[in-house]
Amino acid sequence: MAERVAGPEIERLIQLLARLPGLGPRSARRAALHLVRKREELLGPLAEAMRVARERIVTCETCGNIDTTQPCSVCADARRDPATLVIVETVADLWALERSGAVSGRYHVLGGVLSPLDGVGPGELNLDALPGRIAAEGVREVIIAVNATVDGQTTAHYVTDLVAPTGVKVTRLAHGVPVGGELDYLDEGTLAAALRQRTAF
Amino acid sequence: MAERVAGPEIERLIQLLARLPGLGPRSARRAALHLVRKREELLGPLAEAMRVARERIVTCETCGNIDTTQPCSVCADARRDPATLVIVETVADLWALERSGAVSGRYHVLGGVLSPLDGVGPGELNLDALPGRIAAEGVREVIIAVNATVDGQTTAHYVTDLVAPTGVKVTRLAHGVPVGGELDYLDEGTLAAALRQRTAF
Repeated sequence: MAERVAGPEIERLIQLLARLPGLGPRSARRAALHLVRKREELLGPLAEAMRVARERIVTCETCGNIDTTQPCSVCADARRDPATLVIVETVADLWALERSGAVSGRYHVLGGVLSPLDGVGPGELNLDALPGRIAAEGVREVIIAVNATVDGQTTAHYVTDLVAPTGVKVTRLAHGVPVGGELDYLDEGTLAAALRQRTAF
Repeated sequence: MAERVAGPEIERLIQLLARLPGLGPRSARRAALHLVRKREELLGPLAEAMRVARERIVTCETCGNIDTTQPCSVCADARRDPATLVIVETVADLWALERSGAVSGRYHVLGGVLSPLDGVGPGELNLDALPGRIAAEGVREVIIAVNATVDGQTTAHYVTDLVAPTGVKVTRLAHGVPVGGELDYLDEGTLAAALRQRTAF
């Protein structure tokens, strides 16, 4: 075993690296060796960046985003339109939408999707505060931007029912042909949706 | 950009993670989010493991292995046979051979292979000390365990010439069918080598 060779310190580093998504035991070993080879340029700065992240990054109590401020910089941004609230599954989805630059409103991060098989019910998601938030912030449109998966769509229906009493308008992302996509490679469901929701040219 | 959303701290973490082998920009983002979600169980311990690794892990001045002792635990192990020296390209290869449990001798880590196209000449490798080490440690057999690549074989020939004046016996790993391997999936070169080097049954 590697621990006989390089001691428990590096073995522990490998084990922890192997718990990152996308790294298995073999690639964690490669990553650890790479880190040790680049001690000054990479290992030191990364250890420090992790220490800082651990100390300073908090989950926004308003929307569920992560940031170093409370509330997060999205919630605190006065230029954002308070009338639009975008519901996303994860912080990664929030970042993806921010990269698109197409969202002028704020977000609400659910922290997952309803999944009875995995034991994820409404109580596990960031849902309780949602109706109150809609009322308090004067939201007029809720855009449901969850993944187009079965669990995502189940969650979308649940959110729709949950916010119905507030009388707010509920919309969801369009289905259609991805920009740059080729029709020949798309599934029938996407093509049918793209046809149904065709727009004037 | 993500940095508008979560601040420069997490952006820096993502950029550093993306420099690990096996992680691209997208998977580095996913890894960073995973780390922040698992702040206490993973982010903290990993930052600490990296700090410890940075402080304590050194490169063995004798063989080029990495360890927390100088010389490394392999070089310091008196039960190892000083007459056998195994030449490997990298520490990862040393670990792989240690996992096999088949090496009774010590190692010499070259730190790479000769590769004129990448500007790696003999001066870039851990070669200078090799002839002196063979004489000083009473080595009687040098086993060249480099990769079976073109650059690896070039390096093997160079090492053979380099140690020839010491009169030591030089061997290399056998080519053949991997244990558990199926002949139908092996290349012709491997099959031909396995036939040529067939052993008594």
